[in-house]
Amino acid sequence: MKENADNLYKIRHSLAHVMAQAILAIRPNAKLAFGPPIDNGCYYDFDFDTPLTPEDFKTIEKQMRKIIGQRQPFVESKRSAAEAVEHLKGRGESYKVEYCLELADKGETEIGFYVNGPFEDMCAGPHVNHTGEIPADCFAIDTLAGAYWRGDEKNKQLTRVYLLAFENKDDLKSYIERRELARERDHRKLGKELELFIISDVVGPGLPLWTPNGTAIREALETFAKEQEARYGYVRVATPHIAKETLYYTSGHLPYYKDSMFPPMQLEGEANYYLKAMNCPHHHMIYGHRPRSYRELPLRFAEYGTVYRYEDSGALSGLLRVRSIAQNDAHIYCTLDQVKDELKNTFNMTLDYYRMFRFDNIKVRFSTHDPANKDKFVDDPELWKFSERIVKEVVDELQVDHILGLGEAAFYGPKLDFQATTMLGREESISTTQLDFAQPARFDLTYVGDDGKEHRPYIIHRAPLGAHERFIAFLIEHFGGAFPTWMAPTQVRIIPVNSEVTAYARSLEDALRGNLMRVETDLSDNSFNKKIREAVTKKIPNMVIIGNKEMEEKTITLRRYCTKEQVTMPLESFVERMKRCMTNRVMDNFEDVAV
Amino acid sequence: MKENADNLYKIRHSLAHVMAQAILAIRPNAKLAFGPPIDNGCYYDFDFDTPLTPEDFKTIEKQMRKIIGQRQPFVESKRSAAEAVEHLKGRGESYKVEYCLELADKGETEIGFYVNGPFEDMCAGPHVNHTGEIPADCFAIDTLAGAYWRGDEKNKQLTRVYLLAFENKDDLKSYIERRELARERDHRKLGKELELFIISDVVGPGLPLWTPNGTAIREALETFAKEQEARYGYVRVATPHIAKETLYYTSGHLPYYKDSMFPPMQLEGEANYYLKAMNCPHHHMIYGHRPRSYRELPLRFAEYGTVYRYEDSGALSGLLRVRSIAQNDAHIYCTLDQVKDELKNTFNMTLDYYRMFRFDNIKVRFSTHDPANKDKFVDDPELWKFSERIVKEVVDELQVDHILGLGEAAFYGPKLDFQATTMLGREESISTTQLDFAQPARFDLTYVGDDGKEHRPYIIHRAPLGAHERFIAFLIEHFGGAFPTWMAPTQVRIIPVNSEVTAYARSLEDALRGNLMRVETDLSDNSFNKKIREAVTKKIPNMVIIGNKEMEEKTITLRRYCTKEQVTMPLESFVERMKRCMTNRVMDNFEDVAV
Repeated sequence: MKENADNLYKIRHSLAHVMAQAILAIRPNAKLAFGPPIDNGCYYDFDFDTPLTPEDFKTIEKQMRKIIGQRQPFVESKRSAAEAVEHLKGRGESYKVEYCLELADKGETEIGFYVNGPFEDMCAGPHVNHTGEIPADCFAIDTLAGAYWRGDEKNKQLTRVYLLAFENKDDLKSYIERRELARERDHRKLGKELELFIISDVVGPGLPLWTPNGTAIREALETFAKEQEARYGYVRVATPHIAKETLYYTSGHLPYYKDSMFPPMQLEGEANYYLKAMNCPHHHMIYGHRPRSYRELPLRFAEYGTVYRYEDSGALSGLLRVRSIAQNDAHIYCTLDQVKDELKNTFNMTLDYYRMFRFDNIKVRFSTHDPANKDKFVDDPELWKFSERIVKEVVDELQVDHILGLGEAAFYGPKLDFQATTMLGREESISTTQLDFAQPARFDLTYVGDDGKEHRPYIIHRAPLGAHERFIAFLIEHFGGAFPTWMAPTQVRIIPVNSEVTAYARSLEDALRGNLMRVETDLSDNSFNKKIREAVTKKIPNMVIIGNKEMEEKTITLRRYCTKEQVTMPLESFVERMKRCMTNRVMDNFEDVAV
Repeated sequence: MKENADNLYKIRHSLAHVMAQAILAIRPNAKLAFGPPIDNGCYYDFDFDTPLTPEDFKTIEKQMRKIIGQRQPFVESKRSAAEAVEHLKGRGESYKVEYCLELADKGETEIGFYVNGPFEDMCAGPHVNHTGEIPADCFAIDTLAGAYWRGDEKNKQLTRVYLLAFENKDDLKSYIERRELARERDHRKLGKELELFIISDVVGPGLPLWTPNGTAIREALETFAKEQEARYGYVRVATPHIAKETLYYTSGHLPYYKDSMFPPMQLEGEANYYLKAMNCPHHHMIYGHRPRSYRELPLRFAEYGTVYRYEDSGALSGLLRVRSIAQNDAHIYCTLDQVKDELKNTFNMTLDYYRMFRFDNIKVRFSTHDPANKDKFVDDPELWKFSERIVKEVVDELQVDHILGLGEAAFYGPKLDFQATTMLGREESISTTQLDFAQPARFDLTYVGDDGKEHRPYIIHRAPLGAHERFIAFLIEHFGGAFPTWMAPTQVRIIPVNSEVTAYARSLEDALRGNLMRVETDLSDNSFNKKIREAVTKKIPNMVIIGNKEMEEKTITLRRYCTKEQVTMPLESFVERMKRCMTNRVMDNFEDVAV
């Protein structure tokens, strides 16, 4: 019994019974399997003699509204397990009988049943008091799907009928709209339509190949991040994608993390080499290759390093779950006195990015270790206490709303996770900042303090933009594929109205390309309208229309994808405008942003 | 007998005899081994009872000049093999006896001897007529080194005495100077002093880790190349560092190239994965993922892709011979009609780079296939003939001085190699442009022509800047570590004269960093002179000296590393000057370049 079940849960659960009752009205021989509430409504599994089709949905919904109008009370009753089995057998409910026997086997003595009107179901509840409490206009049968009895493909395949159900009409409508939007914006769908990346079975699953369009987005993001990091005092390093296994034994990733790594390359007579699954050990080697002084700290080593992680091929999905991961990685080596400032700077840098891209509803999770779980965390209670206090002070001083994640820390220290909400309301980790007190000791990293003695630095691991793959998947869905000018694969498409202006169009193209803009000219034989339509389909932010008037007056007519704004301006003004958009990273895909 | 031996060869060969005669004068018991001419003089191997030391060099040289003054004639004589062995035995020359027996074994019947003055040596010649023909002032004993008899470490270690020898005094002097310069400029030495890269045994041999200074150079070069490529109409792609073995069987690299690849990663139940040793197969997958039209061609896919090649650990050397190679790679897919223009553009782009960096003496080699060597080249005589004709036309039309390299082509087509001369006069391949008619068929790449039919594209492989590792090694040595402002790891070091101007120095640092310049301020307690000295040691191109006068007048005093020029200018002029240097890639490390 779900004593605390909220009202929506009860409505959805009750609707499953109402739907079953309505379906039995048109399919009296159907056998019932399971019918639970789910997070957007409920479903019910049936074994039909005559299949149901979407054409039946209206009839069933009508019948359901009739049942609701009848204000049928939900009445609970109990039977002993033996009686329940007999009762269900008598009704010919073979699936329910099987499940009831299983419950009895597990020691259940009393089995619950709910009756409303002519319908009875073995059920633990809870339900609304009577069907009249169910709002009649905020549900809709959604889809039919195949589903094996008990989820086992050796069993018979049943028909699952999905029902969407919400507390009010607006919620239902907005859910359907959001889902439609999410489908349209699915990064796999848009990735294909806009030719951003391909995944080839010949190369391997989870190993995207970035086509020119996708690479333009990657490089725009990367250049921007590099500039930001330069301004924040980071320096860049570049390290190989492989290393001898010794390195990963030193870091502790071997054997701890072995299952997530690709198998080794066995170089006979030399060593086993592994693809790197993380950049940190390589960066620590650079830090440690010579003595360091406190005067050098903080040292911030940044690298857009590609790491490789073995994910089961079944778990791979588009860009969200891949095996090659280009991380916006950096490691900050600092003294104890510097830790808080560095954490704050990292935190602010991260939020600046998210504000710029307008990720709303970012949640911060402060992830700590679980003292009860000694296997999962470095065993050093004093350092945990100390490090977690530092991070706590940082969130308090920055007045960050946050949730706590007990046992969600890295094995080497506490962290701050940033969670974004996807189009469909799913929460996903987007980036993380970790405070590491364990690796410096493993790699014996030190610096000479102003006291002339050796000390251990602290390390902050941070990747505000996560990985290219995941972050760009988010951006594709968030922007619906319409990128701002500075990120767009094609920034400008020039559309000549007729062939008389081709030379003028070409000279404009050359001028823009000379300014390192990604530009193309539509010289096809298509009609003007078709040219516009194709540019719109590709979500190109700036369409530049050129006719005889424009040529004579040395102007261009700009049509914007996002605002549909259309304005004629002198050629030089347009070039200046484009430069401004690129240099200042103007987010001109948002309608309210002035260019 | 080397009938065509030139005069210098004869002089060097004769000097070996003269040196041996002179050494025997002070070490009468020494036994002689081999004494050949080499490309900077000659050497002679001895088995000494009393070791030679560098202190003896002057005495030996004096004695040599005496022998030269005596105008001893070189007299050739022949002995039968049996007589020669007896003769050498009688003289106690055990090493020569061993070698003579070996020659006899191989069927030599007649053994040559040369006598000059009291010295006799088993020798095939040729020599000068008499020692008086040897210039007396253009040789110098160079070094002593250990050398095993016959190069086998199981044999006795002998002493090798190296002699430098040239035809005139200037050549000797300039060789010594060049060698000294090459030593000072050795990229391994400068790489350490300027902290450009490290090679860690824990990570693995041939896998450089680029420290912040080296990475700054890499990224400056990379950004520049990307901009150039954008202007030339290239688009960028990004591909994973691994792929299933199928891909490399398709390309033909497996099994053909297997020994140069890292061993596979065996992913159980899935496939063998290989680290990519070249980017082309990945790029072909992107080209081929959908139908292509002639309207899209030429398509130029560029990637700074890191490839991995297995080199024997003994062959690895600094950055010149490595296992991880970040290539300035691109593949141009074009129609037959476009091949010549694309080759010409590539050729010009390549030479533009070399002119900019002032690589003198670049030689172009036109490498063709060898019809006699069927194993090494794709067996398609017609396509070879055709492709080589195209490349020949290109070099002819561009009027390029070139040498021919028979049998030096790639297995899939002819190529143009660019050879640079190192400080020591060694020729090294710096980049290559290849015309490929074989891969398009292997990958079944096509485009639909304006005739509506399918055609095979041609592919040009090109990498004008070669790989980061090799190219930067060249640049380090070519520039002696003094990079132009736009490439320098630290572009500006600010040197405050006293602590009163610290705030002014800091504000300047912030302004420069805000403009994405790599800047640092020397806030140490060192004296002014020491601060300058340290900046000079690090070869920082721009030292900015700030005293009270500069602070009051809002100026700075710039001292240039390369010209030692020192000039005071308004702050804004300096910032503008730096921006200009960076944006225009001013090669301000050459003294004659105006900024």
